[in-house]
Amino acid sequence: MSPPVFIFVGHSNAGKTTFVEKLIPELIRRGQRVATIKHAHHRLELDTEGKDSWRHKQAGAAMSMLVTSSALQLVADAGERAEPRELAGRFLGESDLVLAEGFSQAPGPKIEVLRRAQGKAPRCAIADGLIALITDCPEIYPELPHFDLEDAAGVAGFLLCQAP
Amino acid sequence: MSPPVFIFVGHSNAGKTTFVEKLIPELIRRGQRVATIKHAHHRLELDTEGKDSWRHKQAGAAMSMLVTSSALQLVADAGERAEPRELAGRFLGESDLVLAEGFSQAPGPKIEVLRRAQGKAPRCAIADGLIALITDCPEIYPELPHFDLEDAAGVAGFLLCQAP
Repeated sequence: MSPPVFIFVGHSNAGKTTFVEKLIPELIRRGQRVATIKHAHHRLELDTEGKDSWRHKQAGAAMSMLVTSSALQLVADAGERAEPRELAGRFLGESDLVLAEGFSQAPGPKIEVLRRAQGKAPRCAIADGLIALITDCPEIYPELPHFDLEDAAGVAGFLLCQAP
Repeated sequence: MSPPVFIFVGHSNAGKTTFVEKLIPELIRRGQRVATIKHAHHRLELDTEGKDSWRHKQAGAAMSMLVTSSALQLVADAGERAEPRELAGRFLGESDLVLAEGFSQAPGPKIEVLRRAQGKAPRCAIADGLIALITDCPEIYPELPHFDLEDAAGVAGFLLCQAP
């Protein structure tokens, strides 16, 4: 079963990662086991050449896991169009709530970080699944809940009300 | 449901990783979707400081995933005594067969890579779950199936006969 997924969208440098970083401890304080999914647009090296997990992957393994005494790293093939809800269902079933970042085209409830200083129109529309804004622009989508750019506690409470 | 897990054990530098590297394509050729689990004894850095997934983990996320167009990396907390069968059940359910390396204390069927030149006694006993040897020492556990140190094809066939 997939935990609820919330997608944080916004223009580059709007402050999505910084906001998510503040939001995670607020959710933990409310008893949630939090997972995150970040979309990396650029061709990122996910493993380190020469590491045994890398050697296994090079040899053709679909998934390769490295385990230490306290943590694990899994590297796996992903489909071209992997989207957060599917990934959460496949890998993040142990978490209570998933915060995704940067999947503006994917289905699912979205919260946009919009900063007036960037002078840009919102990236997502209500029809795209936008359910709230984290912004200093009160005039944008006034029909949706608005949260201050620093209000991680407010957004944490809002997400917990949305989660089924 | 957990895929079958086979644990490759042996002394350091017996050639476990090299053998597993040769075994993976043999299993793929036989239609298997292969996953691997490697135990890293040393305190390995599983993620890169400053990467967004690292920032999410630092902020307290129990699991943090990074997704590119073709692959994903998941970093998650693991229990002190995480063992391959449990990890396979949690994360590797999509694979047909799991090759684990370096969990000589864990429960599960084991295959030991034993090289005469190292001059050491086997690391595992039949009572520990040893089911076969990859070795140039015919006198060790002659009651078990023996495979040559280069015989990845033979071991692939053997594993597929064992898997339920």
